[in-house]
Amino acid sequence: MSDKLADTMEALDLTNKQTTEGGEDDDFVDPWNVVGNSVKGIDYEKLIRRFGSSRIDSALIERFEKVTGKPAHHLLKRGVFFSHRDLHSILTLHEQGKPFYLYTGRGPSSSSIHMGHLIPFVFTKWLQEVFNVPLVIQLTDDEKYLWKDLTLEETQKLAVENAKDIIALGFDVDKTFIFADFTFIGQCPEFYQNMIRIQKRVTVNQIKGNFGFGDSDCIGKMSFPATQAAPAFSSSFPFIFGNRKDVPCLIPCAIDQDTYFRMTRDVAPRLGCTKPALIHSTFFPALQGAQTKMSASDSNSSIYLTDTPKQLKTKVNKYAFSGGQTSVEEHRRLGGNCEVDISYKYLTFFLEDDAKLQKIREDYTSGAMLTGELKAELISVLTPIVTSHQENRKAVTDEIVKQFMTPRPMKCGF
Amino acid sequence: MSDKLADTMEALDLTNKQTTEGGEDDDFVDPWNVVGNSVKGIDYEKLIRRFGSSRIDSALIERFEKVTGKPAHHLLKRGVFFSHRDLHSILTLHEQGKPFYLYTGRGPSSSSIHMGHLIPFVFTKWLQEVFNVPLVIQLTDDEKYLWKDLTLEETQKLAVENAKDIIALGFDVDKTFIFADFTFIGQCPEFYQNMIRIQKRVTVNQIKGNFGFGDSDCIGKMSFPATQAAPAFSSSFPFIFGNRKDVPCLIPCAIDQDTYFRMTRDVAPRLGCTKPALIHSTFFPALQGAQTKMSASDSNSSIYLTDTPKQLKTKVNKYAFSGGQTSVEEHRRLGGNCEVDISYKYLTFFLEDDAKLQKIREDYTSGAMLTGELKAELISVLTPIVTSHQENRKAVTDEIVKQFMTPRPMKCGF
Repeated sequence: MSDKLADTMEALDLTNKQTTEGGEDDDFVDPWNVVGNSVKGIDYEKLIRRFGSSRIDSALIERFEKVTGKPAHHLLKRGVFFSHRDLHSILTLHEQGKPFYLYTGRGPSSSSIHMGHLIPFVFTKWLQEVFNVPLVIQLTDDEKYLWKDLTLEETQKLAVENAKDIIALGFDVDKTFIFADFTFIGQCPEFYQNMIRIQKRVTVNQIKGNFGFGDSDCIGKMSFPATQAAPAFSSSFPFIFGNRKDVPCLIPCAIDQDTYFRMTRDVAPRLGCTKPALIHSTFFPALQGAQTKMSASDSNSSIYLTDTPKQLKTKVNKYAFSGGQTSVEEHRRLGGNCEVDISYKYLTFFLEDDAKLQKIREDYTSGAMLTGELKAELISVLTPIVTSHQENRKAVTDEIVKQFMTPRPMKCGF
Repeated sequence: MSDKLADTMEALDLTNKQTTEGGEDDDFVDPWNVVGNSVKGIDYEKLIRRFGSSRIDSALIERFEKVTGKPAHHLLKRGVFFSHRDLHSILTLHEQGKPFYLYTGRGPSSSSIHMGHLIPFVFTKWLQEVFNVPLVIQLTDDEKYLWKDLTLEETQKLAVENAKDIIALGFDVDKTFIFADFTFIGQCPEFYQNMIRIQKRVTVNQIKGNFGFGDSDCIGKMSFPATQAAPAFSSSFPFIFGNRKDVPCLIPCAIDQDTYFRMTRDVAPRLGCTKPALIHSTFFPALQGAQTKMSASDSNSSIYLTDTPKQLKTKVNKYAFSGGQTSVEEHRRLGGNCEVDISYKYLTFFLEDDAKLQKIREDYTSGAMLTGELKAELISVLTPIVTSHQENRKAVTDEIVKQFMTPRPMKCGF
């Protein structure tokens, strides 16, 4: 790691210092629930130990920069992507000029995408540009149909709406395949075959243990994990990978999705395949505080990509949990607490300028910067992101969506 | 029912007289196990009561003949197809000139089809000719992959081999669509969508109760019943049924498959669909006796469609369980027992001539006909069936198989 990077991480307190193991106050994290038990939020160091993944440490980031010849993304060096499995192997493949691909996804439960939903896609887009590799994006409309009180047609529409938001981020159509399960699985026998290959190798006991499903759940839930696992195997996409056997896969995702991919990695060797590598992000906190991740179902907990500048401003000013003091005088004397301040937290996600972020941290902590000023800073950062996203999304026609969602070869040298 | 038909059924003792309900000696019947506990074999009357289906009685057969204007098939009037659900509704549709379709299938566990496997297809072909309706035939290569120690590729090859045997029976390519799950599900989004619609409406508890699976079974088994249910809904085949909503379905199958279709009928109204009608056959007994159905895994229990005339003759003479007496003298005095004699039983399946069958029954029962003579009769009936099947099968090219297995409209007036 460069000195500058180490300094930045240290200064922002993003070095994930080890905390003591808790007992009853353990955080609860699975693909459907994220509940932190301290004001500071989820203890990610503990999650790493519980899930058995590895810390993304300064040495790995340094290697990443060396191998790719690019400075690390701010989401990487600030510890938003903080955990991994086999990322070293992927860097080695890149060094050797050997192929791999990226896989990420989204459950289209709502047509209103919020800022937190952007994070994995922003980072994945950067990874794709750095590595120049194919990317497959799974929209699990079938999952949402099974879990939610939605019709099949509604989930399909949501998938298309979500695809438009993803495409608006600027993905390269020549290298990116977006698919929704309800449409795609009926277009690709190899994908269905891999689903069944996986289903043969996972017992009901294992799913119950990993996902917490029970006998009163529908059978669709019980077998769905195989559907989310299948894209981690390149043979599921013959139109992209042709006769190449077993192209390795890197999956950027929020840490709550690790449950699916622990299962996938468990099955991989029994299919004669390489285990997918993973890079995990923390959760994007709700405006109300870091204990939970942002939820699309509580409209005041999230800033939506459809919010107007006025709505955005109101939400930040009204709901963003503050680490400041109760009066200006107190604040000047004691300073604000960046550890719990949501406006500051959001800036670590969206303000790319390291120097500026550090200055804000120092000024807020010292009391030189007031909560209102910090919120104004956040509003000035988020507003252009949201308004330009809205502009970009308007340009995404149904025809463009169709292009991204058509099974076809990718243009990435293989 | 015509007097003649009633006489025939009475004479052949195929009227399925009610027997008393048993306790510990109940037969065990599910899609994977068929075990009868008396020498006479499965108590089908008891199965009807346990499964809650209806007897095919003389009034129904009479109505069948009246509505179709055709004499009943010998497998129907001899009680091989003995049980049904909603067959009256199907006859009413036919009377009214309204559309329905036929659905049957097979799990391709072995490339060697035996005589028992023919029965549902022979009868289904006759139903199709009588009603002039589309027929879909599902080959569940995915089921066999999940249950057996076979590779995916092996099950796919078996499906094609089985398709050749089915086609060799003379199905009309203009009205018959044969599909193997591993190939077809990846060609038809609507089929996959129906699978998930069904999976959403069946709990793990229900599957455990109906099929006896447990937590140590793989998740593929738990969700497979939805795959066998999906073809019972016409919307799974848009290339056949177009915009027609909810075309009713009639499923001819052996009674052990009823478990799948009880579940299917349970789900149907919650999908806004008509419950599929069913017509159930008894099992085809093993050469060794009527306690079990013929098994492709014990080569001496079955007469294969690949057997030479010599093998067929040897098997019948050596293994076909006899209801005759231990010596010619005894036999002449006491007569043979048609209830347990397998050669006689097989003749009820394959000898179409009612008068001749009745004569054989009388002569064997009286002792006028010896076991060797009865066996010779069976051999003379089966040999031309097997040899002509072998000839017909040779003519089934890969190109013809491809025609049958290509999703396409059917030529049945809709």
